[in-house]
Amino acid sequence: MMRAGPSQEEIRKHNLGTLLRHVHLGGPTSRAELTSLMGLNRSTIMALTADLTAAGLVREELPKDTGRAGRPSLVVRPETARVYVLAFEVGVDRLAAARIGLGGVILDRREAVRARGPFDMAQVVGTLAGFARQMRRRTREDTICVGAAAAVSGVVRASDGVVRIGPNIGAFEVPLGEELTKRLALGLPVAVGNEANLGALAEHTRGIGAGCRDLIYLHGDVGIGGGIIVNGQLLGGYGGYGGEVGHMVVNPDGRPCACGSRGCLEAEVGEPALMEHAGRYGEMIGRDAVRAVVDAADRGDVMAQEALAHVGNWLGLGVATLVNVFNPEMVVFGGILREIYLGSAAQVRSRIATGTLRATREQVRLRTSALGDDATLMGAAELAFAQVLADPLEALSRVAPAPFGG
Amino acid sequence: MMRAGPSQEEIRKHNLGTLLRHVHLGGPTSRAELTSLMGLNRSTIMALTADLTAAGLVREELPKDTGRAGRPSLVVRPETARVYVLAFEVGVDRLAAARIGLGGVILDRREAVRARGPFDMAQVVGTLAGFARQMRRRTREDTICVGAAAAVSGVVRASDGVVRIGPNIGAFEVPLGEELTKRLALGLPVAVGNEANLGALAEHTRGIGAGCRDLIYLHGDVGIGGGIIVNGQLLGGYGGYGGEVGHMVVNPDGRPCACGSRGCLEAEVGEPALMEHAGRYGEMIGRDAVRAVVDAADRGDVMAQEALAHVGNWLGLGVATLVNVFNPEMVVFGGILREIYLGSAAQVRSRIATGTLRATREQVRLRTSALGDDATLMGAAELAFAQVLADPLEALSRVAPAPFGG
Repeated sequence: MMRAGPSQEEIRKHNLGTLLRHVHLGGPTSRAELTSLMGLNRSTIMALTADLTAAGLVREELPKDTGRAGRPSLVVRPETARVYVLAFEVGVDRLAAARIGLGGVILDRREAVRARGPFDMAQVVGTLAGFARQMRRRTREDTICVGAAAAVSGVVRASDGVVRIGPNIGAFEVPLGEELTKRLALGLPVAVGNEANLGALAEHTRGIGAGCRDLIYLHGDVGIGGGIIVNGQLLGGYGGYGGEVGHMVVNPDGRPCACGSRGCLEAEVGEPALMEHAGRYGEMIGRDAVRAVVDAADRGDVMAQEALAHVGNWLGLGVATLVNVFNPEMVVFGGILREIYLGSAAQVRSRIATGTLRATREQVRLRTSALGDDATLMGAAELAFAQVLADPLEALSRVAPAPFGG
Repeated sequence: MMRAGPSQEEIRKHNLGTLLRHVHLGGPTSRAELTSLMGLNRSTIMALTADLTAAGLVREELPKDTGRAGRPSLVVRPETARVYVLAFEVGVDRLAAARIGLGGVILDRREAVRARGPFDMAQVVGTLAGFARQMRRRTREDTICVGAAAAVSGVVRASDGVVRIGPNIGAFEVPLGEELTKRLALGLPVAVGNEANLGALAEHTRGIGAGCRDLIYLHGDVGIGGGIIVNGQLLGGYGGYGGEVGHMVVNPDGRPCACGSRGCLEAEVGEPALMEHAGRYGEMIGRDAVRAVVDAADRGDVMAQEALAHVGNWLGLGVATLVNVFNPEMVVFGGILREIYLGSAAQVRSRIATGTLRATREQVRLRTSALGDDATLMGAAELAFAQVLADPLEALSRVAPAPFGG
């Protein structure tokens, strides 16, 4: 803001990254479209594409069929099969890993059940490193891993990947990023982020919120997390811990919360609250348990209906506060909140209607996650791709000293 | 983000604006400092300064005393006495206007008491236009008005300056921007903004929060408004209505609010709530009334102490939610909230300590407004200066067809 405009070299880097981001998010794109999207002339687009092609990040080819006369514009495709990242998830009930190609395509994935209880570093890192080994063993020789990142149910310090606190995975000041980096030994650091923040990133870049510049993503995974996109950017806050909407106090006289407070959104709306109100606490856990309550309510089970109405009331109160504070274009419900919202939409909508100013709510759309269970893994992949999208050639030179075709 | 890098002309515009912003916010600055601050070479700084000087926006002069040997670097000063904006405030209890020079110096000001009650457009616009006329009559011939803006206690649509709703000034869908533009007849539009948003802007640019990139400003003016700075930018949201923290529900079973909801932060913490709890409702109004309660509490008045503790508890709960959601570097209390916070800091701090995650609160600082009663007027001035700071020469050409010295 207060610095001078960019240098020529910075502009080239920005343009390379921008072109790569276009094909990463939009898929195969013709040179003509890129020219118009980026507001640059044809020869600049050709030069940028040539640089990215030489680096092995994109490939140019003739379009299948243009349906138009004349010489068709070449199509620029991401090198999805060659250039990939590793994405991990440490959820409350699962450990997951995926190999995701440039362009956001899941090429391979692994998943294991995580038992609830204290955080077991050896088990978590061992399982994920094992998945990574299996998946990398199955890749072709000429593939290249350009990044790795993990989504975690907890409050994460971005700079070093320490999980400051993750009440629902029993984690407290856990150096997950460091351990994953050590055990994976990819020659690049493993970034760590909060699962709801990364879910927000995924839904914003290639999910239901693509194109929205102001979006709130609420993620349920036993507890409740939030990821907030403000003017196209993920809200970080001063220390990077922003978006902890699960610990907004919605009911000052409410249920005790794992964080030590009382009446937090997570305490009133999370899985344990729903299960207790439905008289099913201890029967089942996880998404299946929540789904069972919603199904029972659909079939006319009065106790399940009342439980959903009860938690939906608090969910609506929390969303109303967020709508007044952020005036978002969209609120997205993901994880188990997808089911809870679908089972209590009437209460949520009613609370928003009565608890917000007309101006802040009149344009908001309420939606469920488009990426479903993959949202957090896809978000971790976006975090892992961040370096190569910011400065493609520099990032690549660090992971592949001898570039393809070079 | 997804566009190509800027053109040479855009870079020049950006650099001109950035240099002007430096002297506007930082005061007289030497060419040497500008070179280092902006990361440009000396000849570019000289050329930019020459353009701004020719336009009459800045002036170069020898520094008073450098205390160093050798030829001193020329100092670039904003043309504070020549280039000004008109800033207005439509508060609950006052109508105010100021003529504020480039550099943020109040050159002249006027103020009148506003009677509480329904919004009276003729009275509001008539009073403010009268103030503007008086102040402009006293300016020198060669001065130039480069912008005008008003801060209003209400929810404002930025595009046309309509006050969508201002419960505490009795306004509903009031076309204030249009009427002010018409009556002032300055040849430029009068921008309108929410008073708390503009207070946030002022405290962020030249108040207690200068240098903070993540700041929450809470403004009390009978009701409560908020202005939130996220990563250095004012949070607008999709329609520009973000920051309505006064209508977060902190007490679901609480007091009815003028917005139609119940238990909003403003209903629990605003002036009427404090006065009722203190047993003084109807005695006095406005800042003096609030001050009287705080003074009484200081002198040992138990009812006043309990009233402050009570509202401080709800204020703390609201701030705790904002800390969890935004992880701000600073929370600033302005308007009558300055007094209320000072009289209830123990409750506010205690609620934050118990109602937030350690990670989100550990670095937050709680402060009172540095600009005091001028915060909203100063913020309106920043809004009014926005055009000339974004594109100095273009903005000036619109208001002054024949530039100074041209």
